[in-house]
Amino acid sequence: MPSRRRWLRSGGGCVPSQRVAVVGAAGFGGAVCAAIVQRHPALELTAVTARSDAGRRHDELYPIHRVGLTMEAFDADSLAERADAAMVAYPHRAAAPAVRALRERGLKVVDLSADFRLDRERYERWYQPHEAPELLPEAVYGLPEIGHREEIRGANLVAAPGCNPTAALLGLWPLREHLRDAVVDIKTGVSGAGREATDQTHYVSAADNVNAYKTEGHRHSAELEQELPDGVGITFVPHLIPVDQGLLATSYAITASDLTKDETLGLFHDAYEGEPFIDVVAEPPRTADVRGTNRARAYVTVTGDRVLVEVAIDNLWKGAAGQAVQDLNLMLGLPETEGLA
Amino acid sequence: MPSRRRWLRSGGGCVPSQRVAVVGAAGFGGAVCAAIVQRHPALELTAVTARSDAGRRHDELYPIHRVGLTMEAFDADSLAERADAAMVAYPHRAAAPAVRALRERGLKVVDLSADFRLDRERYERWYQPHEAPELLPEAVYGLPEIGHREEIRGANLVAAPGCNPTAALLGLWPLREHLRDAVVDIKTGVSGAGREATDQTHYVSAADNVNAYKTEGHRHSAELEQELPDGVGITFVPHLIPVDQGLLATSYAITASDLTKDETLGLFHDAYEGEPFIDVVAEPPRTADVRGTNRARAYVTVTGDRVLVEVAIDNLWKGAAGQAVQDLNLMLGLPETEGLA
Amino acid sequence: MPSRRRWLRSGGGCVPSQRVAVVGAAGFGGAVCAAIVQRHPALELTAVTARSDAGRRHDELYPIHRVGLTMEAFDADSLAERADAAMVAYPHRAAAPAVRALRERGLKVVDLSADFRLDRERYERWYQPHEAPELLPEAVYGLPEIGHREEIRGANLVAAPGCNPTAALLGLWPLREHLRDAVVDIKTGVSGAGREATDQTHYVSAADNVNAYKTEGHRHSAELEQELPDGVGITFVPHLIPVDQGLLATSYAITASDLTKDETLGLFHDAYEGEPFIDVVAEPPRTADVRGTNRARAYVTVTGDRVLVEVAIDNLWKGAAGQAVQDLNLMLGLPETEGLA
Amino acid sequence: MPSRRRWLRSGGGCVPSQRVAVVGAAGFGGAVCAAIVQRHPALELTAVTARSDAGRRHDELYPIHRVGLTMEAFDADSLAERADAAMVAYPHRAAAPAVRALRERGLKVVDLSADFRLDRERYERWYQPHEAPELLPEAVYGLPEIGHREEIRGANLVAAPGCNPTAALLGLWPLREHLRDAVVDIKTGVSGAGREATDQTHYVSAADNVNAYKTEGHRHSAELEQELPDGVGITFVPHLIPVDQGLLATSYAITASDLTKDETLGLFHDAYEGEPFIDVVAEPPRTADVRGTNRARAYVTVTGDRVLVEVAIDNLWKGAAGQAVQDLNLMLGLPETEGLA
Repeated sequence: MPSRRRWLRSGGGCVPSQRVAVVGAAGFGGAVCAAIVQRHPALELTAVTARSDAGRRHDELYPIHRVGLTMEAFDADSLAERADAAMVAYPHRAAAPAVRALRERGLKVVDLSADFRLDRERYERWYQPHEAPELLPEAVYGLPEIGHREEIRGANLVAAPGCNPTAALLGLWPLREHLRDAVVDIKTGVSGAGREATDQTHYVSAADNVNAYKTEGHRHSAELEQELPDGVGITFVPHLIPVDQGLLATSYAITASDLTKDETLGLFHDAYEGEPFIDVVAEPPRTADVRGTNRARAYVTVTGDRVLVEVAIDNLWKGAAGQAVQDLNLMLGLPETEGLA
Repeated sequence: MPSRRRWLRSGGGCVPSQRVAVVGAAGFGGAVCAAIVQRHPALELTAVTARSDAGRRHDELYPIHRVGLTMEAFDADSLAERADAAMVAYPHRAAAPAVRALRERGLKVVDLSADFRLDRERYERWYQPHEAPELLPEAVYGLPEIGHREEIRGANLVAAPGCNPTAALLGLWPLREHLRDAVVDIKTGVSGAGREATDQTHYVSAADNVNAYKTEGHRHSAELEQELPDGVGITFVPHLIPVDQGLLATSYAITASDLTKDETLGLFHDAYEGEPFIDVVAEPPRTADVRGTNRARAYVTVTGDRVLVEVAIDNLWKGAAGQAVQDLNLMLGLPETEGLA
Repeated sequence: MPSRRRWLRSGGGCVPSQRVAVVGAAGFGGAVCAAIVQRHPALELTAVTARSDAGRRHDELYPIHRVGLTMEAFDADSLAERADAAMVAYPHRAAAPAVRALRERGLKVVDLSADFRLDRERYERWYQPHEAPELLPEAVYGLPEIGHREEIRGANLVAAPGCNPTAALLGLWPLREHLRDAVVDIKTGVSGAGREATDQTHYVSAADNVNAYKTEGHRHSAELEQELPDGVGITFVPHLIPVDQGLLATSYAITASDLTKDETLGLFHDAYEGEPFIDVVAEPPRTADVRGTNRARAYVTVTGDRVLVEVAIDNLWKGAAGQAVQDLNLMLGLPETEGLA
Repeated sequence: MPSRRRWLRSGGGCVPSQRVAVVGAAGFGGAVCAAIVQRHPALELTAVTARSDAGRRHDELYPIHRVGLTMEAFDADSLAERADAAMVAYPHRAAAPAVRALRERGLKVVDLSADFRLDRERYERWYQPHEAPELLPEAVYGLPEIGHREEIRGANLVAAPGCNPTAALLGLWPLREHLRDAVVDIKTGVSGAGREATDQTHYVSAADNVNAYKTEGHRHSAELEQELPDGVGITFVPHLIPVDQGLLATSYAITASDLTKDETLGLFHDAYEGEPFIDVVAEPPRTADVRGTNRARAYVTVTGDRVLVEVAIDNLWKGAAGQAVQDLNLMLGLPETEGLA
């Protein structure tokens, strides 16, 4: 049975709420999507799906989010009856077919996987043959702050970037016209590794430890190359740290011209003036200061012959679910910050 | 091929080292057994076995322990050729058949599971039908400090108690003649839950959290009932805390007679005077102060109408592997503290 | 200069917002008070004060709370011009004179210290001579869920209970008519020890550790004795665990009559039916599931001859600032949950 | 009264133990010095000193180290009667006068501060006027693995490098002939910040957080410049992570010639073949795998146009106390690994 829409007061009149389904709500990122949508004043959470956890109530798995819906198996027809838009929080490769099924039924979709972030050539080099290449032309890269805001507003399919590219790109974008090369050293919390219990995510392994991983080329560097000017060299190495939610991207940039600290700061203020979710700060940011928020805190200075940038985000918020809702707000014509303040 | 024995200088002459196999060396407790045996001046680590990790080098899994042996599949005949004694660190139920096979081949065995800690009636009430009941008569409860030292010396099969009963019994034993009832509130580190990666041991779940588990009866209470005088009531509730290695047992005891703080302290000093691994301390103990050691720190006072006891141990050492080596030292006629200082 | 009041739409008309000052906003609890008040739809945060941090902006100290006010030195006259109510988050003894000064100027006050929680006799036994005893008759104990809601509604001075008594009392209140004796074993996060940097709150000391403290009588037990029926024996021992925000109170209760698990559950459902901030849950609660919320999750069962209760709260929310705003809502005639959902 | 020397069996005869005093034993690094010396088979710990903690027993402050001596106020004459060598674990500037007093009395000294690591020009640029410049000519940089071993053997004064330069230099030394430029991104545990309780070392601040500090030039880069060939550019940025003991140095090196992964690995094997404390490993190292040991684990690969090196050490062992004992072993003609295995 199609769900009845709620009606919301707005200005002098009434507008219908937008009905949203969250596909893959049992993972860490999808769960936060569901939580944000449920509390969102202009959205209505009408369905949550899960794969192995279908049939369980969401708040049994995540009591803190207080989402009282039962997770369903994915059924595009059923979701299409009840939702105007969907957030898809599946792993890459699994996402593309679900996105296609939802797009065929007319839903606007924000996809949180890598499946629609890259052009086909880049995607197939780093991942595998694309499962829904016909949708790539309509997909928009969902990082509003680096020049994609207007495209996102008109889009039906937005690929929200993940935590690593979000933090790295926010740190390098203001320097783009000067940038020749950057080393990006990522420190990421364990929730970024996903909900699967593995030897690496075991508390005894992750606590009181730090280590690098994927040191010989991480596919997230492909997003950086795509979004930054041609010819910028990127070295990208992620490190796992004993933090629950939080990510710090440290970028060491070589620029074509010598920039002073004040000039770099000017570039950041110019780039992010008026941005509701980005704070350019005077001290190196702490991930604890953005935990549970959609904010990024960015710091820039010059050290030796490098421009040093530090960007802190919550990997599940600005690095995943919060950013996806920010995209959805833009797609649906809602205020960009609604439900995220 | 049987291994050649090392010969050790001892006093004026030479004695052979004792050859030891560790069965189940891929788990947290078994891995520490292997590490201690390898560094032990009078023992020689001749084999390590594993189930799903057979074929991997031990130091690939646990670099910090620096045990360079390859883990083998369990083969009692092969082990018997190379070892005089074995430490078995399997889960309960899996342990009993392995212990039987090793005992049949004449090895002395310390078992770290619950399989030989309880009399048959208690065991079958809390666990399942016993897999090797014929061995129960020769099995000795391996907590030397509560009156079992002499039995252990002569034993061929010792059941090393686990972390929960060790800490609880060390806290209640000095009070045993006065004890009517005790609430035992355990705070245990995550390594106590074992190496298996689960939703509960995932870093994101275990970090920044505390919760009780098995609140309606924990089978470890059976060991307390067996080892304490008849009629003592025990309420036993474990709590999981974000600690890697460490366990604190808080006991709230009701005694038949009113004891002063000094009297309780006297009971503890009498019970543990000369014990090499037990410190009776004047301030509530910290688990950090026993990490990586075979020591227990015990504190006792009177608060309201309860005797309050706090005992801190490292769950993998005095609560598992360290205690098992302490037992093995006694069984083999070695100094009790050798290899454990 | 007196602040101009904001006007808020309410139903068909307009009501003024209530202006609130937070005294002692540099501490952990006071900072959360300021954060909640600032986002509260019916309150206006007009001033924040601090002692050693006066002159600094609040968001320099606590960027995550985004409170842009500069902390002032305490000046009752100045505050009285700009506020209708105050939340006082000073340590005990320092609080009483500030509360008196604010009450003399007509402000409604919620005090987060111990200064107005106890009758004079109890207070002076556990603390020191009372600094403002003339205010004790008007002070109300600010735990709405244990029968104080109506008193709080009419009060001008409410003493919000701290984290330990809140969790303990919520766990024992439903049993009060049956209760003879309870052991309360508290596991508390480090933020409960306050913002002062000490050997005990140093990361290296607090991480990967658990220990008891104040084992020979904690003054918080006085609040339990006052609020529970006469003659109930309470043993209360707090333990420090490596958790940032979070507190778990484990109560082992002896009741006059034998209660079944279902009967105890019935008592809890009866006591907390309709309570907006209390969830009676079927599994032992996790502190992670209430982090950053004003909720308590309570679990009850029977184990051996004890009723076992586990109550999880966030010590800075339901154990401090959240509860104080809940009290303030009641005092000001606002919906109890406003600003706390 | 001068202490009587212990006599140690050695080969066929007897040699006296070397008597060692630890100056500044109340800090984290000094405490580990005392612990290692006390267990060292050829050294005798004859005195420990402290500044504000003088008069307290060392094992009251650090029960886990089990050093039963009472900390004394510093008195060079008294120490000289009882010690042949001293380890000085004072902060920079405070160390130099103590070192001078001990050298004047003939003791061999290992200093753990920065006071004798740099030539005078570099020291005074980054720190302050030197307090004992006359000793600089005899001071040797105490990192044996980068070509200083023979100098250390003959030295009377050795400056043990700190945790940051140790890890960074071990990572860059094998590349030195090819090296043009390196970014060194340090992730360091909280014990590296010292025992002082501050806002930054408070558990609530340090847990679940990561941030950079000293982003505009860290004086430890001076040691790198001194020890590496002239003209190598170094960018050095430290980050604080929620780890107790442990440090990971990530170096992104630009080399004059293109090196393959195999060539870089060959350089590392050549440089560290036979080094007892350095493991060149095939996977990115984990700090947990060196905790409580004097080992460094080093990993090298090529990523993009950078050579990537990851070096993990325990900041209190190979980054402080362990390394200082390694130096002392060399100075005293003892086997380099004695007491450190």
